[in-house]
Amino acid sequence: MVEWYFEKGPESDVVISSRVRLARNLSDMPFPARMSETQSGEVVSRIKTAVIGKGAFSDWDFSFIDVPELNQVDRQVLVEKRLVSPEFIQKKTQTGVLFSSDERVSIMVNEEDHVRIQCIYPGLQLNNAWHLCNRIDLALEQENDFAFNKDYGYLTCCPTNVGTGMRASAMLHLPALVMTGMIRNILDACGKLGLAVRGIYGENTEASGNMFQISNQVTLGHTEEEIVAGITNVISQIIERERALRSEVYKQTPHMFEDRIFRSYGLLANSRMMGAEESMRLLSDLRLGVEMGIVGNITEQKINELLLLVQPASLQRHEGKVLGPEERDVRRSALLRDKLDDRKAIGSGNE
Amino acid sequence: MVEWYFEKGPESDVVISSRVRLARNLSDMPFPARMSETQSGEVVSRIKTAVIGKGAFSDWDFSFIDVPELNQVDRQVLVEKRLVSPEFIQKKTQTGVLFSSDERVSIMVNEEDHVRIQCIYPGLQLNNAWHLCNRIDLALEQENDFAFNKDYGYLTCCPTNVGTGMRASAMLHLPALVMTGMIRNILDACGKLGLAVRGIYGENTEASGNMFQISNQVTLGHTEEEIVAGITNVISQIIERERALRSEVYKQTPHMFEDRIFRSYGLLANSRMMGAEESMRLLSDLRLGVEMGIVGNITEQKINELLLLVQPASLQRHEGKVLGPEERDVRRSALLRDKLDDRKAIGSGNE
Repeated sequence: MVEWYFEKGPESDVVISSRVRLARNLSDMPFPARMSETQSGEVVSRIKTAVIGKGAFSDWDFSFIDVPELNQVDRQVLVEKRLVSPEFIQKKTQTGVLFSSDERVSIMVNEEDHVRIQCIYPGLQLNNAWHLCNRIDLALEQENDFAFNKDYGYLTCCPTNVGTGMRASAMLHLPALVMTGMIRNILDACGKLGLAVRGIYGENTEASGNMFQISNQVTLGHTEEEIVAGITNVISQIIERERALRSEVYKQTPHMFEDRIFRSYGLLANSRMMGAEESMRLLSDLRLGVEMGIVGNITEQKINELLLLVQPASLQRHEGKVLGPEERDVRRSALLRDKLDDRKAIGSGNE
Repeated sequence: MVEWYFEKGPESDVVISSRVRLARNLSDMPFPARMSETQSGEVVSRIKTAVIGKGAFSDWDFSFIDVPELNQVDRQVLVEKRLVSPEFIQKKTQTGVLFSSDERVSIMVNEEDHVRIQCIYPGLQLNNAWHLCNRIDLALEQENDFAFNKDYGYLTCCPTNVGTGMRASAMLHLPALVMTGMIRNILDACGKLGLAVRGIYGENTEASGNMFQISNQVTLGHTEEEIVAGITNVISQIIERERALRSEVYKQTPHMFEDRIFRSYGLLANSRMMGAEESMRLLSDLRLGVEMGIVGNITEQKINELLLLVQPASLQRHEGKVLGPEERDVRRSALLRDKLDDRKAIGSGNE
């Protein structure tokens, strides 16, 4: 099975990915924060057993990773692939992660809750992500009893997750909103609508490469379908605003617009040292060029792949060794040249 | 005949060109500053007549240009080609310029003096430039009597030119001296040795693209040969210093060094808008890469050509029309892409 990020999703000119996660806890175990080491190990073992080799999960070809056994680079790769949260790999207790071979589904065991089910789809597909999460949840419930209260819904470690235990989020690429400064209005509006806006790797991370993750804050008092419909509606409006601004800016300053995109391509395809942050910024410009049909011969999927590969741990994994910061910058630029080398960006704009 | 800048000269890794000019005045005419309009016209006519169609000049295929008849762009092209001084094209009186088809020799009539003979050679060839100037001077003297005093030598409008009437200068490309800040020491040393350092277009112009023009200040009390030998000696030392620094900086920070060169290439080969000043700076980096064998498939001569073509008037002449500033930036980048397009810069450095 091919990883989800090699697939083209709907509205992919603005939406990189859609993600839904469900928080669940075993009814017969204390919350992770209060478990003994033995209990932690038991939870990991029970969830692993409920998934690996079980018929209900046979569609997804799941692997299990014992997180404490991983080195730092391999742990960080999981974060960069967004299979787990940054906090998860820092935990000192027994933790594990199960994921499908297309990396579309991951199940974190002993993050903040016993079980965190996550499904990612390319483009805007929150409804599909929710349905897949639901199937995984039902499959897990065949062998496990999750803590549930008829008044409050699913019980979770943090009260903000009580209810559906669901967080739905989408990663948006919003260069035109950033370029024009209009992003400020969008961020304000999201806040008023009870949506959170974060950087690419979730809570406490900065927005880089003009990527913004928008998610629901409230999980109580609405059905999952209502939450998904609500956030999908807001995102659709943001997509329209972003698209309109792109056309407007391009129309008003076509040369400047194309110049920015092709300069970024020129640097990506020729530099000999490049940091992750700069790579993200330039890849964002290149993606914009691809999305607007200004740059030919590069797909959004290729850029999605590069956005992942330029991350420090993924880069080291790709190179097959631990690298110091300068070596990383050197190898990162070599990788970018290699991946962008088979072609020159072909301008189809107004010359 | 091919223009001089398409030819490769000695020490061309550091020296772009060598130039010698001689100032001469007709003995039977007042200095240009004191001439009547009629007298100005007469001087132009006499020098033109002494050159065009005359056997003594037949080796060089001279053309005559009546400067007041040129439009602003064509005048500025003469400056950008360094056939005339910036001051010359601003003069309100009768002026003319004669130049050989290889643009190696030019004779300005009614600049500060009646006659300014100038010879340019690629690379470090001040001695050759002086000898050619001398031949032109002798050929002109066949039909004209130049103002000469047995104690002071040739008489000129400005006392700083009295004596030999000679200025010898070389255009040096000194990126490593600039990069390391050592250029300051060189400039100080030149001052103490009685040499002037200027920008690319002579007096009152800024150094751009790490190009510096070094010339003698004193023209009295030394023979032409002594002046040429003296300045050649100083330049040889600067060349050695620049070369040593290039190797040192490259050895110490190879990746950073190559990164700078290839980023500049990437921008030159991909931008959609570029100003003259930025072009010069990036072409300087590219030339450094070519000079050090880091960039293959581009010749110093190609870069010399581009350094000329990116100038505002030469660009407009090349495009065949008058262009506004934004149009110039757009066409300049199109020209750079076109000229650098047939190849990708090939790295031969340490990867």
